[in-house]
Amino acid sequence: MLPTIKWDKDKVIMIDQRKLPEEEIYVEARDYNQVAEAIEKMIIRGAPAIGVAAAYGIALGILEVQEKEDVAEKFLQACERLEKTRPTARNLFWAIKRMKHIFEHNSNLPFAQLKEKLIDEAAAIEKEDIEANRKIGDWGKELIEDGQSILTHCNAGELATAGYGTALGVIRAAFNQGKKIQVYAGETRPFLQGARLTCWELDRLKIPVTLITDNMAGSLMQKGRVSLVITGADRIARNGDAANKIGTYTLAVLAKEHGLHFYVAAPLSTIDFGISDGQEIPIEQRSPEEVREIKGRCITLPQVKVMNPAFDVTPASYISAIITEKGIARSPYEKSLEGLEKI
Amino acid sequence: MLPTIKWDKDKVIMIDQRKLPEEEIYVEARDYNQVAEAIEKMIIRGAPAIGVAAAYGIALGILEVQEKEDVAEKFLQACERLEKTRPTARNLFWAIKRMKHIFEHNSNLPFAQLKEKLIDEAAAIEKEDIEANRKIGDWGKELIEDGQSILTHCNAGELATAGYGTALGVIRAAFNQGKKIQVYAGETRPFLQGARLTCWELDRLKIPVTLITDNMAGSLMQKGRVSLVITGADRIARNGDAANKIGTYTLAVLAKEHGLHFYVAAPLSTIDFGISDGQEIPIEQRSPEEVREIKGRCITLPQVKVMNPAFDVTPASYISAIITEKGIARSPYEKSLEGLEKI
Repeated sequence: MLPTIKWDKDKVIMIDQRKLPEEEIYVEARDYNQVAEAIEKMIIRGAPAIGVAAAYGIALGILEVQEKEDVAEKFLQACERLEKTRPTARNLFWAIKRMKHIFEHNSNLPFAQLKEKLIDEAAAIEKEDIEANRKIGDWGKELIEDGQSILTHCNAGELATAGYGTALGVIRAAFNQGKKIQVYAGETRPFLQGARLTCWELDRLKIPVTLITDNMAGSLMQKGRVSLVITGADRIARNGDAANKIGTYTLAVLAKEHGLHFYVAAPLSTIDFGISDGQEIPIEQRSPEEVREIKGRCITLPQVKVMNPAFDVTPASYISAIITEKGIARSPYEKSLEGLEKI
Repeated sequence: MLPTIKWDKDKVIMIDQRKLPEEEIYVEARDYNQVAEAIEKMIIRGAPAIGVAAAYGIALGILEVQEKEDVAEKFLQACERLEKTRPTARNLFWAIKRMKHIFEHNSNLPFAQLKEKLIDEAAAIEKEDIEANRKIGDWGKELIEDGQSILTHCNAGELATAGYGTALGVIRAAFNQGKKIQVYAGETRPFLQGARLTCWELDRLKIPVTLITDNMAGSLMQKGRVSLVITGADRIARNGDAANKIGTYTLAVLAKEHGLHFYVAAPLSTIDFGISDGQEIPIEQRSPEEVREIKGRCITLPQVKVMNPAFDVTPASYISAIITEKGIARSPYEKSLEGLEKI
């Protein structure tokens, strides 16, 4: 198992995902602000992993409480700081909500016990995420047939979660059944999570992977070389509209045009039952430098105008199924997702 | 006018397109082999520009003839070397054919006169290309309305031609009419012609341009921010199927899904009337390093398997119109293109 994120007594250890695969460097965060910065800078990324990081960040916030400080105030400070890191990932707000729930129901306990409860809850979020991913893999593997070629985007693997992965969890579960599959990994500009992280993970798992630039996907499908598409998600609305890494919507359109299934793999913690459709999902706009520069080198005019939305929204009508830890949801999603949530 | 390529007495001068926009460096080729290498290494690229370069390369080949050498043999050597540089661009073979035609019809002339004829023919190919592009601009500008946002891919500008540009020729002709337009330039991985060359050209022309990563195109269209798509072409089959830079087909599918026009701008020299459809167009496979490395830095596992087709084929059914120097062809293209060719 990859140490995407680990709690270690009074600190959080994360692998620096900006440096992979060139360097395996581990970063330590000793206060909630360092965790928040790690999320903002994408030292750690991927909706489920961000959720776990936020929970541990809040736990660190509680450890920081000084003798005369107000515990509730400090707790809320940590929550607010972490809520501001990235707007799209549902799991971030979901994890913070869980921590708030524990705090509210245990605020009368002695401080040492409250602290324990909060650290335990963060650890539970981590553990449950890994379990959820394994179940997602178990459900999803049945959608993959022997000999198929699977196109994925960005990184929805161990590095994007507490472990095992969502979209890559499905792929590895199918691979572990002995199915002869191969993966096409879209490089995922601008941040290159596909080229850097997905290729690295699949190589470690000995799952055959071929790297493509994002704009090759259509041509590959046209030639009949892609059997299906599977991605993760950062936030899914009640109706099944799914926000995921920029470029996902393009793949969904291409899949439709070529009659291929387009699957989304995500835990129920990614589903935002509070919003009716994808238009309500806030889309993070990131720095223009991420587009203008690659590895610190400018690839265009330094002053050129740039767009950098980190995510796009794939309407539910393009999604063949959403694979969750409790089962596979199909259209109409409002009904199927709610049904799974209630199990 | 940009000096994409220039004949200078006994040499060919080209701007090194690999170095733009960081550096404006000019490369001199003094024999046909140096021109061939410049095409292979993409110092010069773009189907029409490659055609002009090949013609001048052959002219250099003739200048290289030593006293006792066989002129015809040397001429054919130069043709064969240049034919092997890049397989997809139709204009390359078209230009070489024109040079062969001049050679065959003038091989009885004294050597000095034959030499003149060949240099003149190469210069004519250059001049005609610029004229053709201006006419493409004149025809095409009527397809663009005031206030529209145009998405283009790769670079089909001055740098891809002898001058003025094909797709960018249409855009600048519309801009010069006073139409308030703006351009979205897809960065065009792996070689980044959009980020490096199209942004640079449009900036020089003061045409508003916004750079996007290729995978943002779908999301932009979904939000209604793209009015139409226009690209160049490297080879067009008799039935209108068009090979162009990898990623073009994906844009054509997206345009169809969003009800947008998808236009191809190319001179008739790009049309290969000898092949019935796009399946017959040879697609160049380039080095995996172009995908694995950006500006010399590896962006993935050094050993990862990679695909790198330089072009894809957009079926004619996705193309709203093909804009040529003799007019605008529409479906059925077999008839309309042949009609224009005969004018």
